[in-house]
Amino acid sequence: MAGNSIGKEFVVTSFGESHGKCVGVIIDGCPAGLPLSENDIQPELDMRIPSQLKIVSARREKDQLELLSGTFNGITTGAPICMLVKNKDTQSEDYESNKNIPRPGHADYAAATKYGRFNDYRGGGRFSGRVTVALVMAGAVAKKLLMKHGVDIVAYTSAVDGIRMEVAPKPENIREGRDENPIRCPDQLIAKRMEETIMKAREEGESVGGIIECVAMHLPVGIGEPIYDSLDSDLAKILFNIPAVKGVEFGAGFEAAEMKGSENNDPYQTENGKITTTTNNAGGILGGMSTGMNITARIAIKPTPSVAKEQHTVNMATMKNETIRVGGRHDPCIVPKAVPVVESAMAVILADHMMRAGFIPKVLKEAK
Amino acid sequence: MAGNSIGKEFVVTSFGESHGKCVGVIIDGCPAGLPLSENDIQPELDMRIPSQLKIVSARREKDQLELLSGTFNGITTGAPICMLVKNKDTQSEDYESNKNIPRPGHADYAAATKYGRFNDYRGGGRFSGRVTVALVMAGAVAKKLLMKHGVDIVAYTSAVDGIRMEVAPKPENIREGRDENPIRCPDQLIAKRMEETIMKAREEGESVGGIIECVAMHLPVGIGEPIYDSLDSDLAKILFNIPAVKGVEFGAGFEAAEMKGSENNDPYQTENGKITTTTNNAGGILGGMSTGMNITARIAIKPTPSVAKEQHTVNMATMKNETIRVGGRHDPCIVPKAVPVVESAMAVILADHMMRAGFIPKVLKEAK
Amino acid sequence: MAGNSIGKEFVVTSFGESHGKCVGVIIDGCPAGLPLSENDIQPELDMRIPSQLKIVSARREKDQLELLSGTFNGITTGAPICMLVKNKDTQSEDYESNKNIPRPGHADYAAATKYGRFNDYRGGGRFSGRVTVALVMAGAVAKKLLMKHGVDIVAYTSAVDGIRMEVAPKPENIREGRDENPIRCPDQLIAKRMEETIMKAREEGESVGGIIECVAMHLPVGIGEPIYDSLDSDLAKILFNIPAVKGVEFGAGFEAAEMKGSENNDPYQTENGKITTTTNNAGGILGGMSTGMNITARIAIKPTPSVAKEQHTVNMATMKNETIRVGGRHDPCIVPKAVPVVESAMAVILADHMMRAGFIPKVLKEAK
Amino acid sequence: MAGNSIGKEFVVTSFGESHGKCVGVIIDGCPAGLPLSENDIQPELDMRIPSQLKIVSARREKDQLELLSGTFNGITTGAPICMLVKNKDTQSEDYESNKNIPRPGHADYAAATKYGRFNDYRGGGRFSGRVTVALVMAGAVAKKLLMKHGVDIVAYTSAVDGIRMEVAPKPENIREGRDENPIRCPDQLIAKRMEETIMKAREEGESVGGIIECVAMHLPVGIGEPIYDSLDSDLAKILFNIPAVKGVEFGAGFEAAEMKGSENNDPYQTENGKITTTTNNAGGILGGMSTGMNITARIAIKPTPSVAKEQHTVNMATMKNETIRVGGRHDPCIVPKAVPVVESAMAVILADHMMRAGFIPKVLKEAK
Repeated sequence: MAGNSIGKEFVVTSFGESHGKCVGVIIDGCPAGLPLSENDIQPELDMRIPSQLKIVSARREKDQLELLSGTFNGITTGAPICMLVKNKDTQSEDYESNKNIPRPGHADYAAATKYGRFNDYRGGGRFSGRVTVALVMAGAVAKKLLMKHGVDIVAYTSAVDGIRMEVAPKPENIREGRDENPIRCPDQLIAKRMEETIMKAREEGESVGGIIECVAMHLPVGIGEPIYDSLDSDLAKILFNIPAVKGVEFGAGFEAAEMKGSENNDPYQTENGKITTTTNNAGGILGGMSTGMNITARIAIKPTPSVAKEQHTVNMATMKNETIRVGGRHDPCIVPKAVPVVESAMAVILADHMMRAGFIPKVLKEAK
Repeated sequence: MAGNSIGKEFVVTSFGESHGKCVGVIIDGCPAGLPLSENDIQPELDMRIPSQLKIVSARREKDQLELLSGTFNGITTGAPICMLVKNKDTQSEDYESNKNIPRPGHADYAAATKYGRFNDYRGGGRFSGRVTVALVMAGAVAKKLLMKHGVDIVAYTSAVDGIRMEVAPKPENIREGRDENPIRCPDQLIAKRMEETIMKAREEGESVGGIIECVAMHLPVGIGEPIYDSLDSDLAKILFNIPAVKGVEFGAGFEAAEMKGSENNDPYQTENGKITTTTNNAGGILGGMSTGMNITARIAIKPTPSVAKEQHTVNMATMKNETIRVGGRHDPCIVPKAVPVVESAMAVILADHMMRAGFIPKVLKEAK
Repeated sequence: MAGNSIGKEFVVTSFGESHGKCVGVIIDGCPAGLPLSENDIQPELDMRIPSQLKIVSARREKDQLELLSGTFNGITTGAPICMLVKNKDTQSEDYESNKNIPRPGHADYAAATKYGRFNDYRGGGRFSGRVTVALVMAGAVAKKLLMKHGVDIVAYTSAVDGIRMEVAPKPENIREGRDENPIRCPDQLIAKRMEETIMKAREEGESVGGIIECVAMHLPVGIGEPIYDSLDSDLAKILFNIPAVKGVEFGAGFEAAEMKGSENNDPYQTENGKITTTTNNAGGILGGMSTGMNITARIAIKPTPSVAKEQHTVNMATMKNETIRVGGRHDPCIVPKAVPVVESAMAVILADHMMRAGFIPKVLKEAK
Repeated sequence: MAGNSIGKEFVVTSFGESHGKCVGVIIDGCPAGLPLSENDIQPELDMRIPSQLKIVSARREKDQLELLSGTFNGITTGAPICMLVKNKDTQSEDYESNKNIPRPGHADYAAATKYGRFNDYRGGGRFSGRVTVALVMAGAVAKKLLMKHGVDIVAYTSAVDGIRMEVAPKPENIREGRDENPIRCPDQLIAKRMEETIMKAREEGESVGGIIECVAMHLPVGIGEPIYDSLDSDLAKILFNIPAVKGVEFGAGFEAAEMKGSENNDPYQTENGKITTTTNNAGGILGGMSTGMNITARIAIKPTPSVAKEQHTVNMATMKNETIRVGGRHDPCIVPKAVPVVESAMAVILADHMMRAGFIPKVLKEAK
């Protein structure tokens, strides 16, 4: 298959490009019986560029959702759900002059080589971060579906440019604190420092990266299909699809590589008639299946490749060395914007695996 | 699809379990025209348990490969290739007494919950590391196919229990140094220290983890399909399928999260008429496509969950707390054994994506 | 996967419903480099309801194509192509009163049972013939792609209500004669008789069915993947997806069942330095692969299930027997309308298999 | 994907070739909890070449099943089930001399063109009818799974060389009558006449074809996924995969093309509190979904292409015209042997769709 679809039961297909007419998504396999309207998705899109996120100088356009198919009387029917947002402010001419000058850290050179003269070089075309809007739309539906089945997912900024939360926040408290600041970090003091370092980077024509953490709560035990469609495999697959992600770890992650076995293993216990573990170094996943503990993932986001500073590059047509300053409005840090994208990505895979493991039926029992 | 297949053109389907009759694999989509015999695969299987690897106390059985289909006159025909190895020394009775006592750090509890009384609890059943033999067989074919098209992959142990190679070895020198010691670390002095820490862990009834690094050389530019089947997505997916992997990063990985944009971006240059980058923080992947630079991945391996030390657990039948000492022969460190598995996993995905991008045809031009 | 996609390389995903906002399609995997604009697709949509097709009393709306993604400067980029047409004249209220009364010959009862109270019963919802517009849009792209690679496909009405062409027309002459009459039958005299029988059926509140034949010319030898994705398998799969299709045969088809082996086998010969067969009972397919001869398929179309005559049915809510007269504007014969749908369906599968067999690359050599 | 797999939840992957070591199959996705042993499959294999079927002069070898994975204590575990039979009597040297002389009606020429000098020409290689053994093994498991859920499938010979059953037998009586004669025709008198025509064809160095009918009983309503994975689409796909199948129809099939709408539509009625139809021209499928009525399919089987009579062909190496007499032991009629293959093919798809629609869970409720 051609690569723009993901999922086996809750199948998401993305379309659109940065400077085309729209960015959109189809969900094929969403169960019948889920109440769904534009109002369920629009807030998630707005969250991508919240009003207070002044540090993010992205396109000013508000993305207006259009829900084109798959519902009847405000409830999903089991038919494919198509959603899209139109692009605005797409000044393609900006890109013409530099079409042979690949921006370091971007997909330009690989894309130009792969697609030759048919490459859509306008703002990264299909490789633009803009395309993650599709994932956010699909994630909004996935999150609503999961929430109806008790599963809650929350992502947040845990580090920016080396400034990090040293203590993991309580999952149930994250969302509130996170939404109080534009950084999407649940600790207000640390968020303030992160904001300062981002502002400083902008002034210097630089950019910074960071780390997003994501927690999924209240999953049943046994989600994840052996061997190749294990839960961590599929989560990692969708997370690495997000532009700028360079590392993914679950639970103790890379730290586990330095632990002793008896230290890293999570001991089982009985708790209120349920089996739980006293620690969660596994990050809620063993043998590729959910253990019933929270799924915890950490995702490394590289600094925005578009920087105002002069960089070395080449002219692909003349094969001469060049320098480039990437102009336009660019985020000095995309971590805050990537938070809802990570949350959505996790939701899409968890919805798919909940369906695959039989915890969500194809026709919901009742709609409220 | 049910989860035991991976790949779109070079499709690998795994079967078999730890204490069943065999472990095997089918490759559907391997091009016609590749010379292939048991002798091409057997050394890779032997590498999994090399004679000098005394620190690894795995099953003594030598895995004898059977190549069952897909070749004619010693050359692949394009038909599915089925390969398997029979299991020996499978003392299932060992596991009967503990079938209700999940071993911490293993898939036992999740599997028992998912499959109920039909769960194959013998030695982890389908979730055993034994099953990676399938990946090694498939990887041997993939590596031969890639080598014919100029692509070389090499993995090695870069850290064990915190003892790490501080300087990355030259890719072209790795294989030689690596194969001189049982740790599969190309630095002999560090390998010695790693061996000591592993021996010590064993004496203490403990286990240790580590980090594997993998390099893929000489890939063409533009391998990887947008958006969801990006190259890093699919590599991460197969790597997380390997039991004990808890983290994956490409290029600068998590370190990129602390770099400035101008520092992390790899500047382009022309070099002998080709476009390359002066650094490789991207790990050879931008926008989910190969850049032509080496692909570099780092994989975190947790310590072996089977340890002789007493651990807390529960009895799933009685719901009472229990303690367990995991007996039998267990590796105090599986990192060396996982090196060929990581190499194979990378090879399978790269072969698949080379085919998908049209760099390997379905019928090879000539066979030598 | 959820069922609304078909193809492995040229992947078509359909969305939309009869009385929703639109009907649309995504093609994922169309090669980069194909010139494509609305003007390439619109005529195919118009052909579905040509002006002279007065016997067809379908919705009067003209379907106006919107091409939303996947092209740049009028050429495909390799990104997903999304196309849709808006629905008009969708008087949903017509269907409310009869939502519990399944129309004989329609999907109503099965759909109501499958989807329960979430079923979109408006005009058949997702099961309406209206949805074939998606296939026509995808087929237009597939046909253009095939034509660039020398492959030509033409379908026509060969029988209506038992009135049939006794002699198969020459493939190269079909298109011209076919487009001279609203029945899409290349023989004008027989077309006249077909039209009369359709008119008569309408007057009687009845409907009639017929047979469509389809010919694909100039295919290379060896298209079709063993075993399950054989060419006839995939063609039959997409053809049976078209509502009202009840039978499919290739070459001699059911007549082959009454032939002797030496009579049915097509003898090979050399002809202008090429290997051909002197007959084509195989319909251009042997062992699931193209033989290089024309692919010939015959498709049985049942009479339109919507008839004005009174029919027996039940009330699903009360479980009482009922009668129904299906009102509204209905075609007394959908065979002519189904001709471009059959042609499109064949084209989609042939484009997919041409790509799978390596005859069409993912990036076209040149665009004109 | 490469083409040797079918199904989305109950996924069947075939391997092996006519003159290789074995023919085998993997089922990935068979639910956990199904009692399964060699004894469940062996009779189905034996049925392929029953002792009384003297008219069939196939290989004398008895196929001895090996069940290699996926069960524990005689019950499926949810892991992939691998089964195979070894080939015997594979005199490859027979084929060497004619490797450049394609047999009319066989896949030889297309295969040689597709795979070039890597083609496995021994007895048709991967394109041999021998490969249907894989389908029979998978079908045996599917039938057992379906039977546990109340669904029964039976196929039978309804016509040979124009000698046909004029009256459709009662489905519940078919199996008994069918197994009384080597033709697998439930009408003993007609079976006798069929046998005579087959014997006569053999004497004349000829072969004959025929028609197989298949009935699936007691399916729930609503099996089949819109749009492209409709039930008739997927059934037709697997049926056309069987070598020698040239036509498939459901219910009234091609006859529907000559019926009036009011005549072809099946009127609904209530019957013992259930909704049924008084006729079944739809063959149990409307809108691609099961209606709850019997699914009825008719399959056209061409005469065996291997005939002793002299036939015209060419030498692919010299491009000269040749004649060929296909020697060896060949069935003058493969219809009886194809009966269990058709039954198995139907079973595989119905099992897959029962799972997809949620009527069969991934872990069975109880095993008996």
